[in-house]
Amino acid sequence: MKYNRIYNFSAGPAMMPEPVLEEIQAELLNYQNSGMCVMEMSHRSKVYQQIIDDAEADLRKLMGIPDNYKVLFIQGGGTLQFAMVPMNLMKNGVACYVDTGTWSNKAIKEAQKYGEVKVVASSKDKNYTYIPDCSDLDIPENCDYVYICENETINGTTFNKLPNTKGHILVSDQSSMFLSRPCDVSQYGLIWAGVQKNVGPAGCSVVIIREDLIRDDLDAKVPTYLSYKTHADNGSMYNTPNTWAIYCCGKVFKYLLNNGGLSAMEQYNKDKAAIFYDFLDSSSYFRGTVAKEDRSLMNIPFVTDSEEHDTEVVKATKEAGFDNLKGHRSTGGLRASIYNAMPKEGVEALVAFLKKYEEEHK
Amino acid sequence: MKYNRIYNFSAGPAMMPEPVLEEIQAELLNYQNSGMCVMEMSHRSKVYQQIIDDAEADLRKLMGIPDNYKVLFIQGGGTLQFAMVPMNLMKNGVACYVDTGTWSNKAIKEAQKYGEVKVVASSKDKNYTYIPDCSDLDIPENCDYVYICENETINGTTFNKLPNTKGHILVSDQSSMFLSRPCDVSQYGLIWAGVQKNVGPAGCSVVIIREDLIRDDLDAKVPTYLSYKTHADNGSMYNTPNTWAIYCCGKVFKYLLNNGGLSAMEQYNKDKAAIFYDFLDSSSYFRGTVAKEDRSLMNIPFVTDSEEHDTEVVKATKEAGFDNLKGHRSTGGLRASIYNAMPKEGVEALVAFLKKYEEEHK
Repeated sequence: MKYNRIYNFSAGPAMMPEPVLEEIQAELLNYQNSGMCVMEMSHRSKVYQQIIDDAEADLRKLMGIPDNYKVLFIQGGGTLQFAMVPMNLMKNGVACYVDTGTWSNKAIKEAQKYGEVKVVASSKDKNYTYIPDCSDLDIPENCDYVYICENETINGTTFNKLPNTKGHILVSDQSSMFLSRPCDVSQYGLIWAGVQKNVGPAGCSVVIIREDLIRDDLDAKVPTYLSYKTHADNGSMYNTPNTWAIYCCGKVFKYLLNNGGLSAMEQYNKDKAAIFYDFLDSSSYFRGTVAKEDRSLMNIPFVTDSEEHDTEVVKATKEAGFDNLKGHRSTGGLRASIYNAMPKEGVEALVAFLKKYEEEHK
Repeated sequence: MKYNRIYNFSAGPAMMPEPVLEEIQAELLNYQNSGMCVMEMSHRSKVYQQIIDDAEADLRKLMGIPDNYKVLFIQGGGTLQFAMVPMNLMKNGVACYVDTGTWSNKAIKEAQKYGEVKVVASSKDKNYTYIPDCSDLDIPENCDYVYICENETINGTTFNKLPNTKGHILVSDQSSMFLSRPCDVSQYGLIWAGVQKNVGPAGCSVVIIREDLIRDDLDAKVPTYLSYKTHADNGSMYNTPNTWAIYCCGKVFKYLLNNGGLSAMEQYNKDKAAIFYDFLDSSSYFRGTVAKEDRSLMNIPFVTDSEEHDTEVVKATKEAGFDNLKGHRSTGGLRASIYNAMPKEGVEALVAFLKKYEEEHK
């Protein structure tokens, strides 16, 4: 690769499009004749206002976000959203969660601080290797929302069909599949995504929230920063936002628009994932851990026949210039995260390496 | 200036040292042969661990932070710290605040959500143009802490002597004077600073907290992200931190160490501020708004004889390539923020321009 860059299979922060990084580098000391770096700009300046306005407009175009949804850029990632969602959306104090792995679990634990959490479906019985049936969930009348983690980064599962919420509000954590395929925003009450996986640098979440869900009657003890209304009423600039991350995300949004949008990304991501899954399905040394119909296009967990061999493979890939293939410490094994910005050539090169490795070690 | 950069007098985000920006630019696509941009790095990788470890070690060296203090890098800025301080430090539910302007006011309002706030001194009577006497405050026995905003960014005042807290814990918001002069950390229980004024890009606060103040018995409804213990127990990496901001801050810490540390910065800042204040004191067209003994070295608010003239001056400076001299919308007038990274040449050039302007308009 150019600049001696490597194929980085990290689950996040992760690869960004090289042309975007080149643009950022070119304007680092002087952004478009403003005489300053974006990091040095007052967030109240006209030049920065244009940056955040463009980022929001491009994201709206990319996802087709309806006018009755607000787009918010908020600091903090999942840990903060796990609290903000229940603090802002629990009116009756009851929410339903689908338990599909590590990240939905963390969301459940945090939500339990603020109200009653009903787990309406779970794939715990098979170690979170599939998406449970969500076509007929037992949802109480007074349920404030149904929450899913739409792509479990660690477990490698993805929802290919949204749950039947029976008229209740759907909330989705899209962090690890944000912008990886087209999305009908009108099906959701709230979508949030930490941008450090499929978009930009860490330190910012995008929240897309239907306007009628933004409340002004929150408990007085909800911190000002944790009220969606604080951010919605001030165009994400009640306080100084993560100006740099928003700038970088804006560049990526524009890059995606200029490269065919989300339909093109979906096709590219399907092609890349197929190369990897086809290899796993034909291998006698490696195997994928997730049920075929629920496999993520973004995060591919796989194993050999032993932990010892897993460790050897991780070491060998690292030496060959493929980084971050070690599975999450909670699950072990291996995992390749192949987000939007991972080139097809990276997947092909890794698969070629693993094929060769298999021949030499089986 | 090189790269056609301009002198930017923004109150924050604000100028960063040019040599630091040059380094960041040089390694943008491939950080020190890692094969990736820092924005693309897993925060759990060895290469990133070294970056955050170095940043913390350099900050400890720079400020002489005692071993019984933790250094935390937390997302969010003042708005979040205004909540975190009382949520974490109010054991008895009573805190004393010194009211010196916009930012202490915001802190007071947020703290009132979580307990009893006693305003023990205020400079409101003279529109926050001085620091009130804090030598004999009426502090109740059960007071959990005494809170100050050590430099009021908007009002342009600074504490040159810390309050006598009578043995109670001192908490200080140092955002707009962080690292501008030597600091005896042992005098404080907690120091926090949004880094987007005197250090790096927006999106990160540094919190320096005495270890015995980190509690594990917080109210169950305190969000996980808002507990200092969450961050302290995990080396600021319970969740993905703002990896980019920490990297940039680390570069600035190293730059300061290599340029004489905080004593050298203090002298440089005194010299720069003297140029500006001497001009204001000798001018018959402009005047500073703050009592001489309480003037900030960082933020210099000043006015002409009318709002109309203020507006004209802002326009003229902008056209001459000096940006962001408009006073905050809450106070009007003009304000020059001259943080560490503002070169002396920038202050000299602005003063020369204002002198000429005065001659032409008086």
